Amino acid sequence: MSQQETSILDGLSETSALRALPESDLPAVAEAVRREMIEAVSVTGGHLGSGLGVVELTVALHHVFDTPDDRIVWDVGHQAYPHKILTGRRDRIRTLRQPGGLSGFTKRSESVYDPFGAAHSSTSISAALGMAVARDLDEAQAKATGAPPPKRRNMIAVIGDGSMSAGMAYEAMNNAGALHSRLIVILNDNDMSIAPPVGAMSAYFARLASGGTYRSLRETAKQLGKLLPKALYQRAAAAEEYARSLVVGGGTMFEEMGFHYVGPIDGHNLDHLLPILKNVRDTEQGPILLHVVTQKGKGYAPAEASADRYHGVVKFDVLSGVQAKAKPNAPAYTRVFGESLIKAADADPKVVAITAAMPGGTGIDLFGKAHPDRTFDVGIAEQHAVTFAGGLATEGYKPFVAIYSTFLQRAYDQVVHDVALQNLPVRFALDRAGLVGADGATHAGAFDLAYLCCLPNMTVMAAADEAELVHMVATCHAHDSGPIALRYPRGEGVGVDLPERGEALPIGKGRIVRRPEGARVALLSLGTRLAEAGKAADALEAEGIAVTVADARFAKPLDEALILDLAASHEVLITLEEGSVGGFGAMVLHLLAEKGALDAGRVRVRTLTLPDTYQDHNTPDAMYREAGLDAASIAQTVRDILPERKARGAAKLVSVGQTKSG
Amino acid sequence: MSQQETSILDGLSETSALRALPESDLPAVAEAVRREMIEAVSVTGGHLGSGLGVVELTVALHHVFDTPDDRIVWDVGHQAYPHKILTGRRDRIRTLRQPGGLSGFTKRSESVYDPFGAAHSSTSISAALGMAVARDLDEAQAKATGAPPPKRRNMIAVIGDGSMSAGMAYEAMNNAGALHSRLIVILNDNDMSIAPPVGAMSAYFARLASGGTYRSLRETAKQLGKLLPKALYQRAAAAEEYARSLVVGGGTMFEEMGFHYVGPIDGHNLDHLLPILKNVRDTEQGPILLHVVTQKGKGYAPAEASADRYHGVVKFDVLSGVQAKAKPNAPAYTRVFGESLIKAADADPKVVAITAAMPGGTGIDLFGKAHPDRTFDVGIAEQHAVTFAGGLATEGYKPFVAIYSTFLQRAYDQVVHDVALQNLPVRFALDRAGLVGADGATHAGAFDLAYLCCLPNMTVMAAADEAELVHMVATCHAHDSGPIALRYPRGEGVGVDLPERGEALPIGKGRIVRRPEGARVALLSLGTRLAEAGKAADALEAEGIAVTVADARFAKPLDEALILDLAASHEVLITLEEGSVGGFGAMVLHLLAEKGALDAGRVRVRTLTLPDTYQDHNTPDAMYREAGLDAASIAQTVRDILPERKARGAAKLVSVGQTKSG
Repeated sequence: MSQQETSILDGLSETSALRALPESDLPAVAEAVRREMIEAVSVTGGHLGSGLGVVELTVALHHVFDTPDDRIVWDVGHQAYPHKILTGRRDRIRTLRQPGGLSGFTKRSESVYDPFGAAHSSTSISAALGMAVARDLDEAQAKATGAPPPKRRNMIAVIGDGSMSAGMAYEAMNNAGALHSRLIVILNDNDMSIAPPVGAMSAYFARLASGGTYRSLRETAKQLGKLLPKALYQRAAAAEEYARSLVVGGGTMFEEMGFHYVGPIDGHNLDHLLPILKNVRDTEQGPILLHVVTQKGKGYAPAEASADRYHGVVKFDVLSGVQAKAKPNAPAYTRVFGESLIKAADADPKVVAITAAMPGGTGIDLFGKAHPDRTFDVGIAEQHAVTFAGGLATEGYKPFVAIYSTFLQRAYDQVVHDVALQNLPVRFALDRAGLVGADGATHAGAFDLAYLCCLPNMTVMAAADEAELVHMVATCHAHDSGPIALRYPRGEGVGVDLPERGEALPIGKGRIVRRPEGARVALLSLGTRLAEAGKAADALEAEGIAVTVADARFAKPLDEALILDLAASHEVLITLEEGSVGGFGAMVLHLLAEKGALDAGRVRVRTLTLPDTYQDHNTPDAMYREAGLDAASIAQTVRDILPERKARGAAKLVSVGQTKSG
Repeated sequence: MSQQETSILDGLSETSALRALPESDLPAVAEAVRREMIEAVSVTGGHLGSGLGVVELTVALHHVFDTPDDRIVWDVGHQAYPHKILTGRRDRIRTLRQPGGLSGFTKRSESVYDPFGAAHSSTSISAALGMAVARDLDEAQAKATGAPPPKRRNMIAVIGDGSMSAGMAYEAMNNAGALHSRLIVILNDNDMSIAPPVGAMSAYFARLASGGTYRSLRETAKQLGKLLPKALYQRAAAAEEYARSLVVGGGTMFEEMGFHYVGPIDGHNLDHLLPILKNVRDTEQGPILLHVVTQKGKGYAPAEASADRYHGVVKFDVLSGVQAKAKPNAPAYTRVFGESLIKAADADPKVVAITAAMPGGTGIDLFGKAHPDRTFDVGIAEQHAVTFAGGLATEGYKPFVAIYSTFLQRAYDQVVHDVALQNLPVRFALDRAGLVGADGATHAGAFDLAYLCCLPNMTVMAAADEAELVHMVATCHAHDSGPIALRYPRGEGVGVDLPERGEALPIGKGRIVRRPEGARVALLSLGTRLAEAGKAADALEAEGIAVTVADARFAKPLDEALILDLAASHEVLITLEEGSVGGFGAMVLHLLAEKGALDAGRVRVRTLTLPDTYQDHNTPDAMYREAGLDAASIAQTVRDILPERKARGAAKLVSVGQTKSG
């Protein structure tokens, strides 16, 4: 059903309208949401399978709960497209992940129906518990002051089984189980996160779900009987039956953690979902875990038939499910990394690879095919991944932790306390460093340079192109005297020839890419801005300004000789990096200040970094333009600060007065 | 027994000697270790209660396991004093936590018996699992190549019940339970970490321990029968009895996570510990969780009688247990923070306080007495603490997360993704910012300025003295438009008068502390180096060099006007901070570069930070001297870089040529 035709969704721009519908209309609503979502994502690309799995659950939640006063916190948020369709964003659903359009995740600034933004996993229980405690305090304070009691509100976290492998979810469960606050955690168990599930907990969930046989409504009523002493259902549950249900029932683990466990129930059956959610809503008892079993990709045959359940897709044909072929011009950095690591492992049995539930995103899927015994997917468990690697390193292994820059934030203390402080040779392969485009600010790899360069013992590299990446993987492999991090961006390389095999680079040495006679300006790039630096240099040279271009390669340790030489022999020195303040440019400034290289005022230094904002999703090119890190912006920065530029009479220049910082 | 007398420990400098002793001698060894530890800590101060609780366990482990080839990973490591006594460090045990002496935690560089250093909690299972997997790979690779099989080795993590509340431990259990690697996790259950335990898991452990009744040796044998099909004990376990033991037994939760659960057993009974550890050692089965119940402070009456079981003590009299009274000259920053927060909460019902198992260390114990309903100790669960605070903030509350700088590293992604990106007004009170003395590098608060200043939306303050701290707590309270962090050091204030009530400071504004006529030098301090800056200025002024001293107050946003003015009107500008590179000084350099304030070479800028090393424990004063951040070093830095200093003919000066950066 396209948006042009009439739809049962036409009148549902507020969830109050959905609540006014009779329950008998809800299957049609679910079907319409499903159709609309498939159509939208066929145009925009994005996350499909997870959303398809929660269509009925989403409809049921908004029908039963008084959103937005009741809070639904979707973990990760990539399954929230049906939620967006039902919460006033239907007219923009085809702008998902597009420049200026809807976010691919939940986002507070986008809707009052998104009480907590997400994108990283396993935060929902903590956030919802905070909201529940706030509500409890509101109620207690009203009672204490004699004020009228506030509206009774519900806080609901919806979390996937994959997200439950993260320690953060456990910490939140542990706290919630002790606080006895009224909190509803819905375990959306589709036996699959991004990749097939790993870890002992996932096996436990599978045992609970018992191979797909759901608890009947009557059995569930018995469970709920515990929660609702006065409920209709309770009378049906004689003591003996009740005892039997306890033996039959799983969920002991959650009960031990202080939760009331209800389930498992079929998450696609509205006849079950609706009464159970109403009961869960109306109980006054402490935290409840409702175990809902869903099928990722449900209701769209091509997704159901696919191995990854169409977790993330590009544009596709709705009828056939065939996705548009991407036309890569050059191999992706991720692939180059994976293949380089395989070669290293072919030659060295000590090389092992670790991923935290992202084998496909990090190239570890390739590695796993070549070296399954040396591949460790620890689940969504970044903290453990890093210290586990530390343990391997103490025994003489060479662990590569392949991880997105933004997700290494989850393991920062482990990097500091377990690896860097002990100077253990753990290799960090930081994918998605810099801006990432459609995934937006939550996935940007903006801070790793700042949070790693400050650490003693740490070596930090960035690859300028895919050939450099090959050499830097070899450098990581060879570097056995301490921790080393290698960052590289999302997407395709620049198309340079790949070396047959990587050669270890000298630690802390950069390289001059071009240095024309009479160069007045030096561009010192770290990472893949090097290509833009080259283009900026071309543009400036066409104007008669000779430009040196250098690739720092290392943010730590710096190539002090190279940098001091550049500063001493140029009028302008500009650092470029795909990262925040406090990173590479800051290290260069610290060096220049310490060495007195700025004292005489012979060189004008500027540090171009990502801006001090969280940039909204857009194309990476547009985002770098916005950041002033594209060739045109770099060239303009040079023109703006070049001393006596005006006096030298070059054409096509802005006046010196129009400095960026002016 | 003092070290001068002969002791059964005299011949035990290697654990092989301990293994050669008959089991009948081990109680005497344990008693000697206990006495020696009490005597040593009575002189050095340090962690006492935890070590006393594991004396028998330590003796039994080193007797049964072939250390150091078998690896014992002590979680946190503050309970490892008995381990140090038995592993060749007895002669230095009275140097614990002293300058140049033994670390108060395990440390790889200190002994081959410390396979993994620690101090932060909950890392041991991850590290030991990494070691176990390395051993498995060694074995598999030897088999594949036909090499002789390597020695059979055991990997043992010893983790307290408090440490089990951290998500990291759960992540590791989840991974270990799936990997089936031979790993021994000893749950040292003393029902108490630093503070009384919180959280649902702690209640679960208490249920398992069943109020102190331990499993008998015979019952334990039945559990072990599962692990040792051919073991002696198995025959005793008839099928029926075995089935009954399963019903009797707890540990289901661990079994569900893929562990073999054994216990609970009495951790002070060597007759039980030794045979059980031997069985656990000899099984070929996958991960085992051995639940050992111990008593913190065991065997020293004053500790047993104390509420905190002498968790951490200063020097004390062995006979009476009376600890030396500290003579505080000024209230500790922690206390000033706690009392200021109480006042804020007295006036505003929206103020809530959150601690991650450190109520005493952060002053939240005081707050909890005044406002128990608004005090949340979430356990050792920093990740959850921060996002829980985020949830509270979305509902209009004003959460203060009181946490050590070094422990906030555990929640970095939550600070970035859940708080700063969403611009939620969570207040971070960072205690122990800067160097901490005897606790050493693992507890230093060195990196928060770098890892926070790079984050958009974040406001970062540091208190220069305890009066400033009072105002900054008020500033945090008033700042409701986004996240704000306030850092302050360990220890006592400088003795200034405290204001009756705090006043909110203007965001991003520093202050000039002194600015004499003709000042050539500006010292721009962030935090408590201000006092040293003042002393350095005094010394320089005595030499005829007038010095401006400013307190930046904010590392982000910077007081741009103040800093640009200082740079424009002085020959030398030096930033001071109790933090690493990439922090405050880096932000100042970024600003000066961007604004062109360095272009003309009118001001010489230097950024004094903590050194790019992990400084060993010492007195804070000595550590700051080593870092060049004491008054004498600051003054010398000024002399070294002051332009034309020599030409002006001042006495007592080094030549200009002898610059620090040479």
